[in-house]
Amino acid sequence: MPLDDARVRYLTDHHQGRLATVAPDGTPQNKPVGYHYNPELGTIDIAGFSMDTSAKYRNIATSPSVAFVVDDAIGEGAPGMRFVEVRGHAEQAIVSSLSEEGLSPHIIRIHPRRVVSWNVDPEHPGLQTHTIVG
Amino acid sequence: MPLDDARVRYLTDHHQGRLATVAPDGTPQNKPVGYHYNPELGTIDIAGFSMDTSAKYRNIATSPSVAFVVDDAIGEGAPGMRFVEVRGHAEQAIVSSLSEEGLSPHIIRIHPRRVVSWNVDPEHPGLQTHTIVG
Repeated sequence: MPLDDARVRYLTDHHQGRLATVAPDGTPQNKPVGYHYNPELGTIDIAGFSMDTSAKYRNIATSPSVAFVVDDAIGEGAPGMRFVEVRGHAEQAIVSSLSEEGLSPHIIRIHPRRVVSWNVDPEHPGLQTHTIVG
Repeated sequence: MPLDDARVRYLTDHHQGRLATVAPDGTPQNKPVGYHYNPELGTIDIAGFSMDTSAKYRNIATSPSVAFVVDDAIGEGAPGMRFVEVRGHAEQAIVSSLSEEGLSPHIIRIHPRRVVSWNVDPEHPGLQTHTIVG
């Protein structure tokens, strides 16, 4: 299990994040995406409509490094914020079972390498960083 | 005015987004941030606690290209999504009046160059892209 329980729980409880990819010219792009945490592989799986023709899907073929963030607020200001940022290596993958009709079988699958989180583990509030040994 | 009314209204009505920057090694980072749309300059101004020691603040000194996204959902699935993604050039700036006590006077200021949006303009639903002539 590459991610620990607190971060897996947070990523499992949420279904919407934002994916940053890098275009061939070196500039970043950032898009809201639906996702699910894949417990078998320990990956973030991102599906979408027309995924295989999207810029983000093309971007990861040339620049596989991505940053994906999930966040919410459970109180006021910075103390009430929570987030998990997953940095890692993304690959194009194909899945056969889709959660929603019309979704492309082409998905973006992120293999976490470094995880930065804030207020996600009640026993360790504040900032935490984890490096995932693959 | 570099952005049109529909996008200015959306960016003015929201106060939380996610900022993608590129680290010196070429990998992206992605963080939730508070912001406000600056109507005088037509910029996105991002403040934060300890901003000047943050990785994102350092990143824009070497890689000024950023992607900033604001989104919300007003219905189910993709048809109910809305977002504005602002790609542009970010600079380190200093402001004297801060909205919240404890915020650093150092801010990240984004000058929009290309704006991709979805369902933000009721008269033009779906995807729209705008290139900003500076």
